[in-house]
Amino acid sequence: MRTVEHLPLPQPRREERADAARNRAHLLCVARRMVAELGVEKVTMDGLADRAGLGKGTVFRRFRTRAGIFHALFDEEEKRFQERVLSGPPPLGPGAPAAARLAAFGLARLEFLVEHLALVRAGLDTGQPKPLQHSPSLFHVQMLLSEAAPAAAASGTLALQLVAALEGPILLYLHPAEQAGPGLVVADLGASWCDLVERVCG
Amino acid sequence: MRTVEHLPLPQPRREERADAARNRAHLLCVARRMVAELGVEKVTMDGLADRAGLGKGTVFRRFRTRAGIFHALFDEEEKRFQERVLSGPPPLGPGAPAAARLAAFGLARLEFLVEHLALVRAGLDTGQPKPLQHSPSLFHVQMLLSEAAPAAAASGTLALQLVAALEGPILLYLHPAEQAGPGLVVADLGASWCDLVERVCG
Repeated sequence: MRTVEHLPLPQPRREERADAARNRAHLLCVARRMVAELGVEKVTMDGLADRAGLGKGTVFRRFRTRAGIFHALFDEEEKRFQERVLSGPPPLGPGAPAAARLAAFGLARLEFLVEHLALVRAGLDTGQPKPLQHSPSLFHVQMLLSEAAPAAAASGTLALQLVAALEGPILLYLHPAEQAGPGLVVADLGASWCDLVERVCG
Repeated sequence: MRTVEHLPLPQPRREERADAARNRAHLLCVARRMVAELGVEKVTMDGLADRAGLGKGTVFRRFRTRAGIFHALFDEEEKRFQERVLSGPPPLGPGAPAAARLAAFGLARLEFLVEHLALVRAGLDTGQPKPLQHSPSLFHVQMLLSEAAPAAAASGTLALQLVAALEGPILLYLHPAEQAGPGLVVADLGASWCDLVERVCG
């Protein structure tokens, strides 16, 4: 009998993994505090390493780029948003007709993106777009469109274009000044999103 | 009589302007050659100043950011594209029904964006989005939509969402690998753009 077979996974590897998880949680916590205190534009990889008391290599391995820091912070907010879609009250959550959920999804998404605007923009890395299969918005829009307008959803790319119609104006085109204040533009975008959904779902 | 009043604008200022125009044309020419030889990712503001034989300050004042270099290069391609829309043959140019022109606009735009993909992505500055009123695509889409579906065009934001539906998948979501090769995804995007236009214009 070789006792080694009964041992758990080699101890050093486990410790490393636990360390990595702790470092990640710690870095995100420090980064969130820095964003709140300094604003997105003043947060750098070096500054984050200093303040977290970790090596620059650790920060680099974790996030790859400066945008990666903000992307990771936004991902945590994204998870909470997805929870509302997957198990929150209708019409955003399950229980309403698909076309109504699609309209509600757009309204909630616009509000959410504007709320986290600095973070989501800073997290965009135009050199390394996020692979499609990792877009939770695309997943929901495709699913709801398949139910509300199966013919429109057949190609898969119309769902992607609807996601772009929803997120693009906030991410790409609108100047911060146009979004600030009373949220007028966002209200307009919400109304025309509902119009678009109605036209597409017929 | 004070002769100074009959003089043209002070000579030094005029010379400066001519210099600035020459510097701009020269910088764009050198930048275009560097992009072709080295690829977008290897072009820096310092490298451009060196190769153009101009001071770093001149390059900085002209383009503000590294993205500004690529944005200026893309703008020159953009002007040629706009010419095709404004005075080229139908259905992209004038002479076809508005809904058909809108569909043709999308197909031509997708091809155009993919052709200049590296440049357009490198020219995106997510910290400084381009003000809406400077988007020629929005101008055309709004104009064609007003003719093809006046009710849909009334708010102005639906036209913006259609521009985002068209440009967003290329600019934001698709991974370079997904766009390369046989252009399958782009063909799909073109087909679903035509579907979308038909649904919106009824």
